[in-house]
Amino acid sequence: MSDIDRRRAERLMAEAGLDALAIFQPEAFRYVVGAPAGVAMMWGRAGAAIAVVPADAAIRIGAVASDHAAGQIRKAAPEVDLRTHRIWIDMVDLAVLADNADAGGEAVDAAYRSQARAGARPETFDREACFALLAEILEENGLATGRIGVDLEFVPAADFEALKRALPRATFVDGSIVLKRLRAVKSPREIELLRRASFAAEAGLVRMAEAVAPGVPLAVLSSAWKAGAQAAASAGGFALSGHWDYISVGSDLSDMNARVVPGAIIKADVGTLVDGYSSDGARTFSFGPPAPLARRIFSALENAFAAGLAELRPGNRFDAIHAAMLSSMRRDGFTEYHRGHFGHSVGGGVGIEEWPFFSANSGEILKPNMVVALEAPFYAEGLGALMIEDQFLVTEAGVEAMNRLPRELRDLSAR
Amino acid sequence: MSDIDRRRAERLMAEAGLDALAIFQPEAFRYVVGAPAGVAMMWGRAGAAIAVVPADAAIRIGAVASDHAAGQIRKAAPEVDLRTHRIWIDMVDLAVLADNADAGGEAVDAAYRSQARAGARPETFDREACFALLAEILEENGLATGRIGVDLEFVPAADFEALKRALPRATFVDGSIVLKRLRAVKSPREIELLRRASFAAEAGLVRMAEAVAPGVPLAVLSSAWKAGAQAAASAGGFALSGHWDYISVGSDLSDMNARVVPGAIIKADVGTLVDGYSSDGARTFSFGPPAPLARRIFSALENAFAAGLAELRPGNRFDAIHAAMLSSMRRDGFTEYHRGHFGHSVGGGVGIEEWPFFSANSGEILKPNMVVALEAPFYAEGLGALMIEDQFLVTEAGVEAMNRLPRELRDLSAR
Repeated sequence: MSDIDRRRAERLMAEAGLDALAIFQPEAFRYVVGAPAGVAMMWGRAGAAIAVVPADAAIRIGAVASDHAAGQIRKAAPEVDLRTHRIWIDMVDLAVLADNADAGGEAVDAAYRSQARAGARPETFDREACFALLAEILEENGLATGRIGVDLEFVPAADFEALKRALPRATFVDGSIVLKRLRAVKSPREIELLRRASFAAEAGLVRMAEAVAPGVPLAVLSSAWKAGAQAAASAGGFALSGHWDYISVGSDLSDMNARVVPGAIIKADVGTLVDGYSSDGARTFSFGPPAPLARRIFSALENAFAAGLAELRPGNRFDAIHAAMLSSMRRDGFTEYHRGHFGHSVGGGVGIEEWPFFSANSGEILKPNMVVALEAPFYAEGLGALMIEDQFLVTEAGVEAMNRLPRELRDLSAR
Repeated sequence: MSDIDRRRAERLMAEAGLDALAIFQPEAFRYVVGAPAGVAMMWGRAGAAIAVVPADAAIRIGAVASDHAAGQIRKAAPEVDLRTHRIWIDMVDLAVLADNADAGGEAVDAAYRSQARAGARPETFDREACFALLAEILEENGLATGRIGVDLEFVPAADFEALKRALPRATFVDGSIVLKRLRAVKSPREIELLRRASFAAEAGLVRMAEAVAPGVPLAVLSSAWKAGAQAAASAGGFALSGHWDYISVGSDLSDMNARVVPGAIIKADVGTLVDGYSSDGARTFSFGPPAPLARRIFSALENAFAAGLAELRPGNRFDAIHAAMLSSMRRDGFTEYHRGHFGHSVGGGVGIEEWPFFSANSGEILKPNMVVALEAPFYAEGLGALMIEDQFLVTEAGVEAMNRLPRELRDLSAR
């Protein structure tokens, strides 16, 4: 099922003067259609999968996808107007022949023909055939001469030139901002995925903290984190579609062979993915008392985090959070500390950090059902990386934390 | 160190009428510069990392990268003319203060200033600042009004428009084909990475085959494969940067919960990545005697594979392999079987399958030091997936297989 809010899409497209969105990025196709774009998107080229969202919410969502991906799409999103094109992968259903000991070439050929599987296949996918299917969808819905928003922050320039040549009657403009605004507000399903991802990642941090002991290498902490996250997912009855971790141990932030020594700072900025949706969160530990300067910096980060959290509410602007957190750092005496952003939306996009950002000049507004990560990091080479990051659901009333672990700089030698 | 052959680049650019290549795709930046493009490429936007290859091999390679990625690039590729831009991540070296119990905000501020770390940072990265650095590199090398090949099969249309506005004196054209031809011929380092990746993946297949028994679920076979691949890499003294597996068990090709039953076909199409370079290979097993039709099809695949292999030699065209394999299938009575390609180059690109392909209309020529995967697959829903795929290094004399496992349809119940 699609995660798209058609009423909101209608409103945003009206504001942007668009008659429809034509979306080419695989992650966004998944979001609009509710099923994966398929293997023909592996090269990052545009066309193999296209999702069409007419501004008029009464017109159903359209999709172009490969015959290889079609089965899964029809099952997951029967309501979508799907047009398919042939890709390089030959396939045929031979179930009726499976127990026939005499079946040979002719019977197999007949199966191809009866399933409309016969005929040549392109080297990879036929971009022009895909564009023709898009033209068909637009035409049949009265959008052929419309103003179509395309995700030009994804579509490769070479493919966009071909698209304009193939559909000369349509006017294509950049619809990226509309897509990004749509995606920033999450559906209940998306919120649940991000909640699960955050839950698993945090369980991993608990397991990682248990593994901290003198001499333990970074790689072992990373494995412990992963194992804890996987175990929590299994116990919770869901699977992880991916995971990532930026763990640093000690004062050399780029030393991937670092081991835990007394006084070491251990920073873990981690996330797991559930159905392509990535969590983002971080905790910092020490083994034994940290250096006074590390404590001082961490205390400033705690203050900055609290200052940002106090501004996190529906109706507030993203830049208000940046201003509050930077001011807090200034109050605590860090005049030259700068961060481009103190957090961001999270979701199922192409990067872990999703637009909008808590940055100095973001005029975007916090809205209910956004899910955001608020972060206060300090990367001090020669001392240690220090960081607090939590994930929040924006509600009608304020925010709801998706993390439970205390945010303090915890000394793990004190267990 | 760069993997690029500057003499060959010079020749290919002369043929294409290019004065330089400006490369924006992160995987290609890694290839040209010899160091990762950095975290600012996470959104797939163009600019955060740019590699410049002047056609004139006497001019050194240029690069634009973030201050965050610069350290690693300078270390890995000191010969590159690197220009850096500031991204959102604040960082400072506080080693001199680490043991100073009294150090506070002022001392930290002084560290920022002495390291030229002070000053505001952009929300993510400043695309226009990156383009200005590119302009600088072109200008200083007499290329400001040149004809510059850009990887427009990657660069998002929105960013390409901005690039043309920012550097109006240069002429930007699509240089994708030059980049792809360069990448298709591998350096000794790249060949070694692909050899290792293939070795680990095949060790995983041995482990997977050992795990096959009645009732064993697909997920267990996948885990066994991964464990075997990881163990082989560790024993070989190298790390895997990734892995992927398309394993099917039995007659329902999309059933991820399938278990091994008597007569089941087990197909494993797998690869591991070493330093971003992915292997590609496949074997097919059965548990107990397979259905006669499966044996018949597999026998045709063996013939097709042999026919393709016989054509695999330097100087031959990629389409000759496709013709030979399709003809073989026809001779064996499969008139409606079609495949868009019977294999492809392998490497460190964005998709597992790298251009060029063994397809019906590819006029590309096989050259020494290409590494290719030759594949003969048959996806029969209701019967089983059947496939043979091996990786080959093209040599001056012919080809050298990177796989050792016999290619037959092996009955694992016969152990």
